[in-house]
Amino acid sequence: MTTVLPEALVAARESVEPALRAAVARLDRDTRRVAEYHFGWSNADGSPADAGGKALRPALVLVATRSAVGERVDGTGEVAGAAAVAVELVHNFSLLHDDVMDGDTSRRHRPTAWTVFGSSAALLAGDALLSLAPDVLLESGAPNAASAARSLSATTRVLIAGQAADLGFETRADVGLQECLGMAHDKTAALIACACSIGPLSLGARRDAVRGLHAYGTELGMAFQLVDDLLGLWGEPEVTGKPVLSDLRARKKTVPVVHAMASGTAEGERLRELYEQPEALTEEQLAEAAEMVRRAGSEDWTRKECRRRLAVADEQLTAAGLDNTESLGELAEFIVRRKL
Amino acid sequence: MTTVLPEALVAARESVEPALRAAVARLDRDTRRVAEYHFGWSNADGSPADAGGKALRPALVLVATRSAVGERVDGTGEVAGAAAVAVELVHNFSLLHDDVMDGDTSRRHRPTAWTVFGSSAALLAGDALLSLAPDVLLESGAPNAASAARSLSATTRVLIAGQAADLGFETRADVGLQECLGMAHDKTAALIACACSIGPLSLGARRDAVRGLHAYGTELGMAFQLVDDLLGLWGEPEVTGKPVLSDLRARKKTVPVVHAMASGTAEGERLRELYEQPEALTEEQLAEAAEMVRRAGSEDWTRKECRRRLAVADEQLTAAGLDNTESLGELAEFIVRRKL
Repeated sequence: MTTVLPEALVAARESVEPALRAAVARLDRDTRRVAEYHFGWSNADGSPADAGGKALRPALVLVATRSAVGERVDGTGEVAGAAAVAVELVHNFSLLHDDVMDGDTSRRHRPTAWTVFGSSAALLAGDALLSLAPDVLLESGAPNAASAARSLSATTRVLIAGQAADLGFETRADVGLQECLGMAHDKTAALIACACSIGPLSLGARRDAVRGLHAYGTELGMAFQLVDDLLGLWGEPEVTGKPVLSDLRARKKTVPVVHAMASGTAEGERLRELYEQPEALTEEQLAEAAEMVRRAGSEDWTRKECRRRLAVADEQLTAAGLDNTESLGELAEFIVRRKL
Repeated sequence: MTTVLPEALVAARESVEPALRAAVARLDRDTRRVAEYHFGWSNADGSPADAGGKALRPALVLVATRSAVGERVDGTGEVAGAAAVAVELVHNFSLLHDDVMDGDTSRRHRPTAWTVFGSSAALLAGDALLSLAPDVLLESGAPNAASAARSLSATTRVLIAGQAADLGFETRADVGLQECLGMAHDKTAALIACACSIGPLSLGARRDAVRGLHAYGTELGMAFQLVDDLLGLWGEPEVTGKPVLSDLRARKKTVPVVHAMASGTAEGERLRELYEQPEALTEEQLAEAAEMVRRAGSEDWTRKECRRRLAVADEQLTAAGLDNTESLGELAEFIVRRKL
């Protein structure tokens, strides 16, 4: 699949990466090495690499800030850049830690940091990124830097609650659809909402603009997670960087899976049986499990729910009365085109 | 051993614990449960407990703040209290994470949190405490809250570097005394130095007072770690909450151990041999290893170095020209009386 990246994503990566690298360069040598590998800037031996992520969250920060305050306020670019770095630091803290907890061995087509440097080194690198995030905001010179730092900290705790819920789901057979959607909100949508609102918040934009962008980000973040769940089932390995049917292999209780199990259909029951089987699922059983999700109507429901979330997101944006929302729309479109 | 706690410690625990509990109460239910167990406020089943730590760092924050700004500045007590909570949050973040990384199963006479709730839950609780620390400072209303938050973040990264170095030492036979002292600085002294200076920094005290208290805390923190290293060798289990000779059992490269190994004596060589032995050390070999540290002159050296650090700490305090340093002296005295 060849996808043309939206201009905003390319621009964000180019403009934010130098500041992100400068922040990471403040870490001690050992921890920095792990972080630079994780970000895709270096290989395990320290030689340079070019395997960075999509910088979706930084792009959202930059574009959302522009849509709320334009270039009217002095230093807008600097503040938005700092906010973009801070959000990306928190996102990567959570990736480093989650990969250890989940035992995930592959990310962005490469071995995860803990498989290369050990769990402790990966945990310390995550800790260090988390500790950098408020500093970057507080040093940005933004008028409301402290509010922005507190918003990002609060969001970090929502992420943590989401990961705790996700881990709890592993040992539970009775996960409901609502709590599964709640977990998706906490693990993913909360930080996207923060990304969409933290720049304007830092700069003291109108409260209803900040609130509108936060609500927009929440819906967009839910849509993003739903697409991710579909990709975890049917995504092609060269797109996802993960083996086919990987979420089923790991028996993850993602939204489509939980929707199927809670559907009251025979297919949902069969899926539950497969998830409760003590032995690892065979390739045939994996294919069967995916088919059960589809036949329970849960692939369809997830796609529709994703489109519904995007429509609500659009309404939020319109209601917030922002100037220039074209780039935001382009980013949202890109997120969904990944799969739907 | 019955030790009378200095008044400042008792007072700090009483005055800081409610705010610390209120901060922890902001966490999600799962994570809060782990944190409350770790702090000694509850048992594994959630029933109330009274097994809290010594609150040494909060006491240092309160006492150092009073010595630098007295009660002259409005809101001093509130700001110092918030700083004390923030420092204690970072300290306990590091305990929760280090216990997982080091595989330590006992702390404060109780099973460590990860042995009760699992590694992931303990890691998430540590993450959550770390994320709370800047919030508590930024909400304190202190004039220089942002500087204080940045100082605490920077200190957190020194802690992380110290833990990374400590983990690196495990697989190295050639650890030198200077880098071992550097690790002790990073893991312990840096946060004690921050505890001694963060209150005055938050309140905009004279720069030389802040600097003097930071230098004082660095020396006091080194003395504290040296005492801790001696306790790890010869401390009584009922005092330390750990089995006798526990640091030797875990082959930790603490200051007295590294001093002995680097002493060029036959005893140091024998100690190194024991540490390199593939099998677990027998009780006899543990006793022999401790005797080697003693006979290499390293127990003696560590005690003397500890006293020297305390003398330098005193000089720093005098040079800083502070008002009321009696309580600080009492706390320092208490730290050392634990063993010397």
